[in-house]
Amino acid sequence: MGEFELIQAYFKSSACAYLNKNISLGIGDDCALLRPSPQSEIAISTDTLVADVHFPAKGDAFLIGQRALAVTVSDLAAMGANPIGFTLALTLPCVDQAWLKRFSEGLCLKAHECSISLMGGDTTKGPLSITITVFGEVPLGKALRRDGAQPDDLLCVSGYLGEAAGALSMVLDNKPYDFSALLKSYWSPIPQLVIGHALLGKATACLDISDGLVADCGHIAKSSNVALVIEASKLVISPLLSAVYEDEQCLQNILVGGDDYQLAFTIPRDLFSELVKTHPSIQVIGYVTKGSGISVVDKKGVPIVLSQQGYQHF
Amino acid sequence: MGEFELIQAYFKSSACAYLNKNISLGIGDDCALLRPSPQSEIAISTDTLVADVHFPAKGDAFLIGQRALAVTVSDLAAMGANPIGFTLALTLPCVDQAWLKRFSEGLCLKAHECSISLMGGDTTKGPLSITITVFGEVPLGKALRRDGAQPDDLLCVSGYLGEAAGALSMVLDNKPYDFSALLKSYWSPIPQLVIGHALLGKATACLDISDGLVADCGHIAKSSNVALVIEASKLVISPLLSAVYEDEQCLQNILVGGDDYQLAFTIPRDLFSELVKTHPSIQVIGYVTKGSGISVVDKKGVPIVLSQQGYQHF
Repeated sequence: MGEFELIQAYFKSSACAYLNKNISLGIGDDCALLRPSPQSEIAISTDTLVADVHFPAKGDAFLIGQRALAVTVSDLAAMGANPIGFTLALTLPCVDQAWLKRFSEGLCLKAHECSISLMGGDTTKGPLSITITVFGEVPLGKALRRDGAQPDDLLCVSGYLGEAAGALSMVLDNKPYDFSALLKSYWSPIPQLVIGHALLGKATACLDISDGLVADCGHIAKSSNVALVIEASKLVISPLLSAVYEDEQCLQNILVGGDDYQLAFTIPRDLFSELVKTHPSIQVIGYVTKGSGISVVDKKGVPIVLSQQGYQHF
Repeated sequence: MGEFELIQAYFKSSACAYLNKNISLGIGDDCALLRPSPQSEIAISTDTLVADVHFPAKGDAFLIGQRALAVTVSDLAAMGANPIGFTLALTLPCVDQAWLKRFSEGLCLKAHECSISLMGGDTTKGPLSITITVFGEVPLGKALRRDGAQPDDLLCVSGYLGEAAGALSMVLDNKPYDFSALLKSYWSPIPQLVIGHALLGKATACLDISDGLVADCGHIAKSSNVALVIEASKLVISPLLSAVYEDEQCLQNILVGGDDYQLAFTIPRDLFSELVKTHPSIQVIGYVTKGSGISVVDKKGVPIVLSQQGYQHF
């Protein structure tokens, strides 16, 4: 099976490679063509997942496909953008048709969930690696950036944290998908597109938590030139996490574990109560203040020292 | 040096990471933001270059950076699109600052040549690999596609072919850049943006030749549902190529060697003479006819049998 047959069989003819009002040309030409709506901006993000760095090479290809797309679409959620399309750059050591079938099925399922279409890509030979670039649309000038947090804003997250980190040892042991409900948080994170969209015009800063709560909140603090205080006592522990771990380990997973792809955002206090009514998974976990950096404090306001700050590649 | 310091030092603060009227947010947030001009479409293409598959891992990082961007921007030229921006997904085995400096300098020089800005990306640890996704703008509905070639159109190329293929053995031997002028064709291909733009509203089909003239013309034939005839006697041999190779080898390099990133296009006969006046590098190399597939014929119209068809990954 050659490169072109492979693309035709597993990607071009896939149910997730469809044209729509924003995609006028898909897979098969030199470029795909995206047709923007009037008064919109195109949000763009790229993520690479390398075998045995970001996922176990021997993992189920269905899950790898699903997760690769989810973590990238999550960046659209973090900007409040509506997904349009994505390109897939897939590097494969060889043509393994069973693997490709599973991978494209997982990719396609997640694409369907996120209403995003496969527009193009590149298939090359080499060590297994997946680079996905996503495109979404956001009303002109309204995108959720990291640099607008204001002192006295509330610091919130879109849902439970730490579940994916809690699953990591099971992932590395290659446990089957149904071994634990925590594995779903790792292998099939749900991009918070609905909440991201609801935050447009309300949140002053927003990002998705991929490297860990503390590390990622540090990016908001730096970009917005403010300090963020995380109140440990306000962090609501996921029942899935507390069923497996002691309190201390739960807190560690919540604070420094990445991979949940929930949103962290800052919002003026007067806009919060309306928001939480329609999106009850949202938790207030702290506040913004003058200064710089991140601190995590206990019930009495005493800083907690963390053993690690979050994931870094090098 | 961590991931964020690396991005800051070699990419975010690079001279090629600038905002312009079409880029409202660049490196450093969850997404970059592209602001389309009214009545335009966004052309998008992704290319991956894997070490020791697409370039020698021990090659000069400056040349690798330059070439990686050039081959991807070439896809914009093939659609007649004006470059806007690109994302860079860079996978590195380790942080080698000297390598990164050279790579970003090469990338930046080519970005400057092509008037394209670095908008975002991802830096990960793993086997050396580069995935670039480019964005360009083209007037709504005017992009040069592969599917419009009509019987009796002329088949043309934008310039000399085969030079990069002629350099390949020197590339694999890791010869220095100044060893032969042919090496420039391989390491620093020039995306044919000017000719691509000039073809808008004129060419009926167009693509860039990356896998070889015959293989790539095959894509036009298939997409347009026509046959293409390449007249070998009309192929003009590059003086750089004929200085090194015998006629027979020159022809082989021209017909099946990839990597030149010249454009192949079809155009109605009555539009050709005006075009070649302003773009004298353009060569007529054949014509379109009813039927399917590609044939290469000699002066007498007798088909020439080729020993290989072009580059395929698997």
